Amino acid sequence: MNDNNNAPLTDATHHPALRSWVASANEPGTDFPIQNLPLGRFRLGAQEAERASDHALRVGVAIGDQVLDLKLAAQLCPWADEVHPLLEPLAAGDLPAFMALGRPAWRALRAALSAALAEGSEQGPFLEVCLHPQNAVRMALPCTVRDYTDFYVGIHHATNIGRLLRPDNPLLPNYKWVPIGYHGRASSVGLGGPVRRPQGQQRLQAEGAPVYAPSRRLDHEMELALWVGVGNELGQPVPIEKAEQHLFGVSLLNDWSARDLQAWEYQPLGPFLAKSFATSVSPWVVSFEALAPFRRPMQRPADDPAPLPYLLDAHDQQHGAIALTLEVWLHTAAMRAAGQNPVRLSQANAAEAAYWSPAQLLAHHSSNGCNLATGDLFGTGTLSGPGPGQGGSLMELSRAGREPITLPNGERRSFLEDGDTVLMRAYAEAPGVVRIGLGTLSGTVMPA
Amino acid sequence: MNDNNNAPLTDATHHPALRSWVASANEPGTDFPIQNLPLGRFRLGAQEAERASDHALRVGVAIGDQVLDLKLAAQLCPWADEVHPLLEPLAAGDLPAFMALGRPAWRALRAALSAALAEGSEQGPFLEVCLHPQNAVRMALPCTVRDYTDFYVGIHHATNIGRLLRPDNPLLPNYKWVPIGYHGRASSVGLGGPVRRPQGQQRLQAEGAPVYAPSRRLDHEMELALWVGVGNELGQPVPIEKAEQHLFGVSLLNDWSARDLQAWEYQPLGPFLAKSFATSVSPWVVSFEALAPFRRPMQRPADDPAPLPYLLDAHDQQHGAIALTLEVWLHTAAMRAAGQNPVRLSQANAAEAAYWSPAQLLAHHSSNGCNLATGDLFGTGTLSGPGPGQGGSLMELSRAGREPITLPNGERRSFLEDGDTVLMRAYAEAPGVVRIGLGTLSGTVMPA
Repeated sequence: MNDNNNAPLTDATHHPALRSWVASANEPGTDFPIQNLPLGRFRLGAQEAERASDHALRVGVAIGDQVLDLKLAAQLCPWADEVHPLLEPLAAGDLPAFMALGRPAWRALRAALSAALAEGSEQGPFLEVCLHPQNAVRMALPCTVRDYTDFYVGIHHATNIGRLLRPDNPLLPNYKWVPIGYHGRASSVGLGGPVRRPQGQQRLQAEGAPVYAPSRRLDHEMELALWVGVGNELGQPVPIEKAEQHLFGVSLLNDWSARDLQAWEYQPLGPFLAKSFATSVSPWVVSFEALAPFRRPMQRPADDPAPLPYLLDAHDQQHGAIALTLEVWLHTAAMRAAGQNPVRLSQANAAEAAYWSPAQLLAHHSSNGCNLATGDLFGTGTLSGPGPGQGGSLMELSRAGREPITLPNGERRSFLEDGDTVLMRAYAEAPGVVRIGLGTLSGTVMPA
Repeated sequence: MNDNNNAPLTDATHHPALRSWVASANEPGTDFPIQNLPLGRFRLGAQEAERASDHALRVGVAIGDQVLDLKLAAQLCPWADEVHPLLEPLAAGDLPAFMALGRPAWRALRAALSAALAEGSEQGPFLEVCLHPQNAVRMALPCTVRDYTDFYVGIHHATNIGRLLRPDNPLLPNYKWVPIGYHGRASSVGLGGPVRRPQGQQRLQAEGAPVYAPSRRLDHEMELALWVGVGNELGQPVPIEKAEQHLFGVSLLNDWSARDLQAWEYQPLGPFLAKSFATSVSPWVVSFEALAPFRRPMQRPADDPAPLPYLLDAHDQQHGAIALTLEVWLHTAAMRAAGQNPVRLSQANAAEAAYWSPAQLLAHHSSNGCNLATGDLFGTGTLSGPGPGQGGSLMELSRAGREPITLPNGERRSFLEDGDTVLMRAYAEAPGVVRIGLGTLSGTVMPA
């Protein structure tokens, strides 16, 4: 934690001429060039695991369409002395232990991996046998989720939702002062895959008795996930200028939401069962180091109030935003049956969508002394753009179901139907740097 | 989980003539007679631990003013064969593993401990050396808190708070249908002791800019804690008739609340930093078996709507309420300095206060498929009675600070001051059965 904020954002690991001896990492469209190097946990594919009698979790690095297996890499490849203590928890499959080491360790490992995976590296021949194709391994959550907090930083989302409820006064008075958030359910956070439509209380008529029935207004929410690497002691707030150093990295997050359950239950204590049936995150954690070339100034309009001092840091104001393009795609059962490709529902940019920075979220969360820990997960809240086609939820795109959207094959959607697959992706592009991505998060609605 | 709800509520372990060879367990005022037998985790006192080089967590049973050390008891005392597998996790200090075994195991251990601690037991001489005075050990949380959920079952509390905000319409329309709850912060749940006054955003004038400053409206909330013993799989709701069997037991809970932070932050997603700085629970978990003689019918007024079928079970309607008397006491720094005793702020009865039963909370929580796990903690919400002097929070007792209360020594309180110690206790009494208690939960406010 001895970083300083005035260090250059990028280093040699970002150099656009850097290429990997893993050929697929050099293809222009890949999410995982050598400039990215996200970490995740996986198990060997069924056949391999059978052969090796090894079903345990391993830590890997995504490179092109491959996974570099750090258990094998620690065993089979020579490393500089100072890299061994960094590799030790990773070779043991213990990503949380590495997350707890802090940013200097994360940077040192990144530099070592970058050198080892670069074209011409002397370690290449040793590491070639440590690769698995990504489609041959089974990914797992990067760590057990400790506490999960969902924020509400998407100002266009908050405005869109607020407008549906309060047309004259869409944003509540606290929005531009408080990074609004609430505690979410940690136990039901998982990777994508099948998600069962929840049952729950809903009131079909304005004054009638509620019923307990399958949700009819199931929705997705496009968010980013932030993973806490280094915690803080109870009673010890983290100062804003050190806050981002506590964050290990970024994934995609789908905050599945049952709007009918939510509307009926959420007063006065907030969302509960409308969200707790499932939250999906993508398996690869992209580091803040990899995102460095895509940091942008916070876009707070000049006549908005300045953040209170505990949320205000000059470096964060200049570099707090992350220019990630966020996309939601839909693949219905009918599309799959007809051999049609998914269609894009929305596209937005996180830098334009987020009113608060990652550092501001962490500083705020700990500002009352609340203790954060390795493995805590933050959702940013839905990241919608200001325009049409930029809503990160169907609630926005269909205006609460009042204006169903029509898909290219003629299907209409107010909310999600059984068999619908929601795909989320995010990527960053900028002139003179290499594009990186967060991968894809895919989830399919199963009948109640 | 092969219990059935028609089993008699009480058995021989409740017999009022049952006395223990531990003399203090037979004293009339004790919270921990042989009819109680709550479990908890502790460490040896500093001196003993030093001698034994043993600072590890142990599991114990409270009996009178002593703790029966189950590590020693498993080693030094003969037990029937069928008791060994129950004692194994407890001897290892692993209370969660025992919690996960389910109600038949919990009942079997209770019967074995009751027989062993009873007057005339042949095991007595072996167990005498397995006792530690309670004031010589250091208690710990009964288990690591997984997810923490705070409910809102206190209908008089909800009405009192609602009346302060909406005099004409204090209860929201969903209250009598939905067991309202929200996710709380698990990391900051601890035993009592010092609690630091939080800092946070608050708005001092109705239209002005907020400030970040120490809370000036710090409050307690008197709740019961429910510990989940046996979880459920994601997507598999727990039926109401089996729900209580998933609950391991009951403790006291103080949901410390910063009312000024809460008022400013809670719209639209509910309480967050106003609660997450600290939640305190008492260390002894009293089983539902011990509480059996004190179960009462749910007190739902005849003209209230019946619970929806997924929350309705005839046995639960007859026995869902728990007749625990709940008391909050205050000991200010000035009282301590003058050698004065604490004063009682409030007294209420949980059976009268709670609109929903423990089984209804668990069934509702899982009704959308949300997966519960061993070590999940539920707070009931503040349990206030309907009358004056029955408010489980200062918010109610001082009517949001508008009518400060005057203490016997002349001090006045709208909210808690630095140095104030809040003491909570709960006990159950009924004709023909032996009184039991939950112990005391004590917390002291430290300056910000």
